[in-house]
Amino acid sequence: MEAMQSGKQLERIYLQATVHGEGIDALRKLAEETQTPINKVPVEKLNNLNVSNHEGCVALIAKVQYQDLQDVISFVVDKGETPLFLILDGVTDIRNIGGIARSAYCFGVHAIIIPDKGVGALNEDAVLTSAGALEKLAVCRVNSLMKAVDELHLNGIRVFASEMKATKKVFDLNLTEPCAIVMGGEEHGVYPALLKICDEQFQIPMTGDFDSLNVSVATGIILYEAVKQRLG
Amino acid sequence: MEAMQSGKQLERIYLQATVHGEGIDALRKLAEETQTPINKVPVEKLNNLNVSNHEGCVALIAKVQYQDLQDVISFVVDKGETPLFLILDGVTDIRNIGGIARSAYCFGVHAIIIPDKGVGALNEDAVLTSAGALEKLAVCRVNSLMKAVDELHLNGIRVFASEMKATKKVFDLNLTEPCAIVMGGEEHGVYPALLKICDEQFQIPMTGDFDSLNVSVATGIILYEAVKQRLG
Repeated sequence: MEAMQSGKQLERIYLQATVHGEGIDALRKLAEETQTPINKVPVEKLNNLNVSNHEGCVALIAKVQYQDLQDVISFVVDKGETPLFLILDGVTDIRNIGGIARSAYCFGVHAIIIPDKGVGALNEDAVLTSAGALEKLAVCRVNSLMKAVDELHLNGIRVFASEMKATKKVFDLNLTEPCAIVMGGEEHGVYPALLKICDEQFQIPMTGDFDSLNVSVATGIILYEAVKQRLG
Repeated sequence: MEAMQSGKQLERIYLQATVHGEGIDALRKLAEETQTPINKVPVEKLNNLNVSNHEGCVALIAKVQYQDLQDVISFVVDKGETPLFLILDGVTDIRNIGGIARSAYCFGVHAIIIPDKGVGALNEDAVLTSAGALEKLAVCRVNSLMKAVDELHLNGIRVFASEMKATKKVFDLNLTEPCAIVMGGEEHGVYPALLKICDEQFQIPMTGDFDSLNVSVATGIILYEAVKQRLG
C-alpha cells in the first residue's frame, strides 16, 4: 500500500484467496484506483515466491513503466505525430510480447496496449526478449480492450484487426491515418466481440498451403507496411 | 558408414579427435562424398551423448531432409516458378532458424540454404519452433556459401543481401525476378566477402532511434515484400 500511495507502479498483487479484513478492503480500493491487477491465489503460490513472512500478500514491482492511454494519445497528438498503436489481444507468451515490443520500438509505435488480465507479468525475460525495448516503449495496461477501442475511436483513431479469414489485404489498408492495429493470440485470434467493433479486418497474403505466421513476425510485417506507407 | 552407404542422411558425425586408422579414413571419404559434416570433439563430448560403446564416433540421423541446391533450382525452374531462395549466413540460433523456416514456408520460399559449419544441428527444437515447416521445406546444406552464390548466379538468380548500412530500401528491390535473399546473424551481419559478391544490398527502413529487428522478424518482412511484389 505504501508503494502504491507513493506512486510506485506495481506489476501485480498476489493475494491469498482466504485472507479478508479491513486492510484487504483498503488494499483492493487502492489497487483499483491505481489500476493494479490483483490475482487471488492459493497460499502455496505465495510460499513459492520466496518472500519471508508474506502475510497473505505479495506485490511485484513493475519492470515496465505503464502509462495512461489518453495521456499517450494527447502527448502524440500534441507533438504533431500521427498516432500508431498496437493492441495485443490474447498474446499471452511473454517472449512473443517481448519480440513484438522490439519491432514496435524499431517502427516507432507510440504505445502497446495490453489487457491487465490473461497476460503474463512483463518480467525480466520479457524485457530481455525485447532487447530492452519494453523499458523505452510506452505500455498501456487497460482493464478492457473494448473500452480502449472506444477511447481510440473517440480520439479519431481507426482500429484495424488482423484476421486470417479477412478478404482485405494488409497493403490495402490506409495506414497513413491515425490508427491502431489489433493482433490476436496464435491459437484463437482476436476475440469476436472486439473484432466486431474494429473498423477493418485484414490478412497478410501468403502463398501455397494454408499455414500461419508467428504472431511476432506477423506484427513486424504490419508495422513495416505502416512505416513504408508513412514514408510515402 | 552403413547408414551413409544406404543413402540415409546424417545430420553430422562427431569424431573423437584422437582416433585414427584406415576405418576412419574411409569414414571421412564417405562423409565428404555424402556432404556430411564431421566435428572433431574430445572424448567427453561423445561420452555425454549417452551412446553406449561409441568407439570414438557418433552419428546423428538428420531430422531434416537435405537437398542438393542444383537439384532444387532445376526442379523449381522446370515447374515454371520464379525461384525464391533464402541464404542464412551466421544465423546460429536454431530457434531463429526454426522461426525463419516457418515464415519461409508460409511465403513459398523454395529452399533455405545454410552452411554446414557454424550452425547448430537442426534438431527437434528447431523443427518445433518452425511449427513443422522444417520437415516440409527444402533445406540445402552447403560447404561454402560463396560457392552457393556462384551456383545461383550461374542459374541466373540474383542475390540480395540484408545490410543495415545499405542505402537501398527493401521495397526498391525488384523481387519479382529469380532471386535469393542473404540474411546475416544478429551480431555480425553478412560476412564481408559474401556481401561483396552479392548483387545488391538493402535495408529495412525504421523510424526513430537506431535499433535492430530480430533476424526472424526481418526475414519475414523481406519475404512479405517479395510475395506482395509477385502478387502484382
